[in-house]
Amino acid sequence: MDRVLISSVQDFARKEIQVLAEKIDREDYYPRHLITKMGDLGILDPLYSGASVYDSMLCLEEIAKVSGSVALIQDVQGELVNSPLRTFGHDLDDLIDDLAKGKKIGSFALSEPCCGSDTRSMKTRAEKVSGVWRVSGEKMWITQGMYADVFLVAAKTSEKIGTFLVREQDCVEREKIEVSGNRGTGTAKIRLNECEADLIGGWQVTKYALSIGRIAISAIAIGLALGATEEAYGWAEERTAFGKKLLEHEGVQWMFSDSIADLESVKSLLDVTCKAFENNWEMAEPLIAALKLVSSKIANNVVDRMVQIMGGMGYAKSTRTERAYRDVRLTRIGEGTDEVQRLILSRHLREMINNTYNAIE
Amino acid sequence: MDRVLISSVQDFARKEIQVLAEKIDREDYYPRHLITKMGDLGILDPLYSGASVYDSMLCLEEIAKVSGSVALIQDVQGELVNSPLRTFGHDLDDLIDDLAKGKKIGSFALSEPCCGSDTRSMKTRAEKVSGVWRVSGEKMWITQGMYADVFLVAAKTSEKIGTFLVREQDCVEREKIEVSGNRGTGTAKIRLNECEADLIGGWQVTKYALSIGRIAISAIAIGLALGATEEAYGWAEERTAFGKKLLEHEGVQWMFSDSIADLESVKSLLDVTCKAFENNWEMAEPLIAALKLVSSKIANNVVDRMVQIMGGMGYAKSTRTERAYRDVRLTRIGEGTDEVQRLILSRHLREMINNTYNAIE
Amino acid sequence: MDRVLISSVQDFARKEIQVLAEKIDREDYYPRHLITKMGDLGILDPLYSGASVYDSMLCLEEIAKVSGSVALIQDVQGELVNSPLRTFGHDLDDLIDDLAKGKKIGSFALSEPCCGSDTRSMKTRAEKVSGVWRVSGEKMWITQGMYADVFLVAAKTSEKIGTFLVREQDCVEREKIEVSGNRGTGTAKIRLNECEADLIGGWQVTKYALSIGRIAISAIAIGLALGATEEAYGWAEERTAFGKKLLEHEGVQWMFSDSIADLESVKSLLDVTCKAFENNWEMAEPLIAALKLVSSKIANNVVDRMVQIMGGMGYAKSTRTERAYRDVRLTRIGEGTDEVQRLILSRHLREMINNTYNAIE
Amino acid sequence: MDRVLISSVQDFARKEIQVLAEKIDREDYYPRHLITKMGDLGILDPLYSGASVYDSMLCLEEIAKVSGSVALIQDVQGELVNSPLRTFGHDLDDLIDDLAKGKKIGSFALSEPCCGSDTRSMKTRAEKVSGVWRVSGEKMWITQGMYADVFLVAAKTSEKIGTFLVREQDCVEREKIEVSGNRGTGTAKIRLNECEADLIGGWQVTKYALSIGRIAISAIAIGLALGATEEAYGWAEERTAFGKKLLEHEGVQWMFSDSIADLESVKSLLDVTCKAFENNWEMAEPLIAALKLVSSKIANNVVDRMVQIMGGMGYAKSTRTERAYRDVRLTRIGEGTDEVQRLILSRHLREMINNTYNAIE
Repeated sequence: MDRVLISSVQDFARKEIQVLAEKIDREDYYPRHLITKMGDLGILDPLYSGASVYDSMLCLEEIAKVSGSVALIQDVQGELVNSPLRTFGHDLDDLIDDLAKGKKIGSFALSEPCCGSDTRSMKTRAEKVSGVWRVSGEKMWITQGMYADVFLVAAKTSEKIGTFLVREQDCVEREKIEVSGNRGTGTAKIRLNECEADLIGGWQVTKYALSIGRIAISAIAIGLALGATEEAYGWAEERTAFGKKLLEHEGVQWMFSDSIADLESVKSLLDVTCKAFENNWEMAEPLIAALKLVSSKIANNVVDRMVQIMGGMGYAKSTRTERAYRDVRLTRIGEGTDEVQRLILSRHLREMINNTYNAIE
Repeated sequence: MDRVLISSVQDFARKEIQVLAEKIDREDYYPRHLITKMGDLGILDPLYSGASVYDSMLCLEEIAKVSGSVALIQDVQGELVNSPLRTFGHDLDDLIDDLAKGKKIGSFALSEPCCGSDTRSMKTRAEKVSGVWRVSGEKMWITQGMYADVFLVAAKTSEKIGTFLVREQDCVEREKIEVSGNRGTGTAKIRLNECEADLIGGWQVTKYALSIGRIAISAIAIGLALGATEEAYGWAEERTAFGKKLLEHEGVQWMFSDSIADLESVKSLLDVTCKAFENNWEMAEPLIAALKLVSSKIANNVVDRMVQIMGGMGYAKSTRTERAYRDVRLTRIGEGTDEVQRLILSRHLREMINNTYNAIE
Repeated sequence: MDRVLISSVQDFARKEIQVLAEKIDREDYYPRHLITKMGDLGILDPLYSGASVYDSMLCLEEIAKVSGSVALIQDVQGELVNSPLRTFGHDLDDLIDDLAKGKKIGSFALSEPCCGSDTRSMKTRAEKVSGVWRVSGEKMWITQGMYADVFLVAAKTSEKIGTFLVREQDCVEREKIEVSGNRGTGTAKIRLNECEADLIGGWQVTKYALSIGRIAISAIAIGLALGATEEAYGWAEERTAFGKKLLEHEGVQWMFSDSIADLESVKSLLDVTCKAFENNWEMAEPLIAALKLVSSKIANNVVDRMVQIMGGMGYAKSTRTERAYRDVRLTRIGEGTDEVQRLILSRHLREMINNTYNAIE
Repeated sequence: MDRVLISSVQDFARKEIQVLAEKIDREDYYPRHLITKMGDLGILDPLYSGASVYDSMLCLEEIAKVSGSVALIQDVQGELVNSPLRTFGHDLDDLIDDLAKGKKIGSFALSEPCCGSDTRSMKTRAEKVSGVWRVSGEKMWITQGMYADVFLVAAKTSEKIGTFLVREQDCVEREKIEVSGNRGTGTAKIRLNECEADLIGGWQVTKYALSIGRIAISAIAIGLALGATEEAYGWAEERTAFGKKLLEHEGVQWMFSDSIADLESVKSLLDVTCKAFENNWEMAEPLIAALKLVSSKIANNVVDRMVQIMGGMGYAKSTRTERAYRDVRLTRIGEGTDEVQRLILSRHLREMINNTYNAIE
């Protein structure tokens, strides 16, 4: 683990992000300047700065502890857009550098109004006209969609699904979507009208983006849970009820103990999954599905317990825990719902039951 | 069951409340005129209009299906304030009528910043000075606190806890609290500065209010769950994923089936508890605690499943289900947390284990 | 509620059944003489003795508190066999009286090796040869199958499913099945070889048996849970751990409180469902499915918690709780699995969501 | 991972243990000859044969897949008795070799009738008389207690708790305890009557035994869950219900997917915890508590789902799954209950919340 990196991210999160987190949420405020600052410091896209996948995920955790929204922005900017561009793109060095430094904003555009996680029913089309790809269609739930300079877009060609880079702006109509949590991230429905596009690669590129994106969402889930636990623990140390500190109540202790134990479990799985991804990202698919399914479930349960420990404060708009409660709910829906993860897992059951250790070694 | 009453409430909810529900939530908009209208129609405080406790609860359910906020307002106005005034007050006919008709707004003030559900640690004091009671102290999480004309306030006298009616306005400082759900209900922290007050009765009065209030919160929980289920079912009938309607997916069917089965169970318990309350409200305490604990748990689980079925739509600010997800979380905190209900139950375990049928007969 | 009946059953259970319960379980001992005794006392088939459905269920609860096996025998004898015979049969008064008095033993034979709860795939056939029905096929998981004098058998005729009474013995081969819990009930796989049979009615008869049988299984589940709770509560009052009685540990109190609250909920649903069954048994199908699904889930969870409170004692073969842990697991499988109940519910979702109160009124 | 070791253990488990597993369970048959055979092959105590802690745990998993009883025997023989003797004992080479080879049988004796997991209330006493330690007291739930040649016994001296080796036999009275699962392991209550004993060390030794023993119990839990999953998957591939294979039912697929995902998570935690134990076993205490708490919970849930998928077969005494259902319940009670693990965790909350990565690195 690169402790220097992690602790510099932690520092930044506590000093610069935490103070803005409530404003970002309540005012649906997109923190453009934070993105630039993080880019300047080399912590916007840790993978680009040479961090391991696991260390990048720990960075996401640290940020999610104080703001799920900023963590989601980092995830989209670094994992969903820039990482696939680096892995599959050609001659994109300037753009990649601009994205990593926060000079440009990127969005990942896969979901559609018709069909969410069911990508086979995708309606967006790419056509090659006079040697130039043109992409048309509607995309939904696009984080940073209101502000993106470039879009990584999945679209159907006559034959199959391709992944395209759209840099043009005039062809894009943007419509804001108000969401429950992870506010201030510029979530949008976008309409692409014959946008000129570069082909980055096939479905492979989108699949790669989803793979690392699902690990990232898992890290965010864990970070949100840890942040809420931190806050609720502080509260339980101070607050008195029925003659003793909350923390001295056995029932409350058990709520914390169960939460911490569950989190240790998914933190281990995150570690193992990052290594598996680095080793062979395509083979890691079922493990990633397991991680996403379990970590988001655990994180939702943990945050729910922390709301309960915080009582009314866990329901008041000024606390990290209240925000985390809304933010963390997304992790069971975004970048492939629980149901999609179960579907992926169901295709690998036999090998996972028989081949028990392969995933770990 | 008084079907005429229930269906008139249902009608009003669908025609008049549903259209405003999103505005109430998003703009934190207090729907003063709806309260008057409901008062005019005799459905603001069904108990006052002669409805049975159970029928009143079905009214709350109907309203909660479309707006948790309006249901909570009705609960406070009718169950927490007006019902105890009718049961324990004297010479309050005009006020009671004004509250039932929505001409005046009432708040129930028990929780305090120090100690939430732990009422024994209450700090608010009442003192009799020259024959006049004066109440001073801070109260927290007061629904309608920003708008109330009168307050039913628990306060400690030299000897014990009394329940007082505060009608004066100048002595009350009000501070808005922004909350996660049930928005638009005027939630406030209030400060009472030597407010002149009438003694309505002892702790008994507050206990009575809590008893009927907890039944009401349970009905609201059930209503929120039913409303979300209704919306998600409609969505599942229309939406296609992976080649068939959501509703044709066995996994989705099971989510609905489990939800409906659980809800049938708590609906039965609501029925039984209402009868027990009418029979002897003090004896009904453990049953009410059971109802509150179980119905809020079930309702939270059901709404959570409905968010999942709705996918991104369940996370978008325009749906009943997204709202219900935030609204229903309160039902495990407000008017006595889960933990308080468990505490009450733990004092009645032996009788509940041995005396199995008494509660039901 | 017929308190005299219930308390006489309770008395019998505590004095005569409880002492034998361990032997019945460990030695897989079929308590034939208990059946006769219960028949003599008029408590083997309370419905026959004029009890309401709800009171009959309370009798089952009382017996299940001390022995799931004897309760299951009572269920099969009274609800699954004798009640449908009384409702649909003709000229069966002697047999019905013998079954109610424990002079004859009856089995209900529906499940088959091929297809368990999937009754449409049934392979057992009934053919009319020279005016006489003859039934052939294999039936599985038949309680009392080793000892039955008569069998109520579902079988396919050329057209549809009929329900037949087989009294002949020579044509029946019986093979014992060793099961995890509810031991001593003579569970068998049976083979019918062209058994002479009387047609009692169509699928209707079997459906009726399943309807009341599912209510009965639910009552048994509740009884098992209450029995284990009773034992564990006694243990928690006596046992000291970490310096205080188990019962003084907040965590343990919460386990009891959650259990009791959940049980109150399903007890209410049992009451409501019994009334619905008496009112119109066919219309009650979805409510029965809800009851079976929820009560068996709750009961399994409660017994699991009681095992945990009992610690090692909950794992030792001499306790009611250990036995209940195995016995109660059947309630999620027998007379229609969880999955079958979910399937039934999924066919009634719309009416259950819309028509919220009909089931209750 | 030492694949040769693991696959030789797997082989042995499938060929030699699986065929005996039902007999061990049903007849409460202690498989003495298997122990000798495993000793001969060097797989009875893999740690002694030089395996890493993690590899030893994978061996336990493989054995638990087919027999929880034999796995428990291996755990006691190797982890609870022989490993602490090697780590803390002196001049015990012959005994250690005999235990590893299955020539001698060892038991670990900590729990007492009075106080189970609450070791501070221990009543067993050790006194030094004429230079010889003598141990007296009662111990409960002692695996292999009926057959042990030596006992590792925790006892109170005048000052504190010591860990003693008792080799004498005449001073030991043994009383069989019939248990729900893990049968055939010679579970006993033993009475030590002034048994001559060697002091191995202080509480430290017992704590070490518990630490590795809790990791071992976790591995057994995982193995039981994997074994049941394997069997149920085979069943689901073959069995038809409602017109298609069980495995083609989405609901069933989800049950498998959830199970596999949860298991991946605790398998990762097992891996991480083994490394932490090897690195510094005392510092690993909270992580071990987390592992024990989570893995036993997950394993119980998984086996429960597999029983459900197997239906009646999951309730019949001939299946691995039915056995696993009873065996796995012990893992939440033995070697420190859930509640004890929560207590340990509650003492390390702050460090676990703050120091998030230390455990992993």
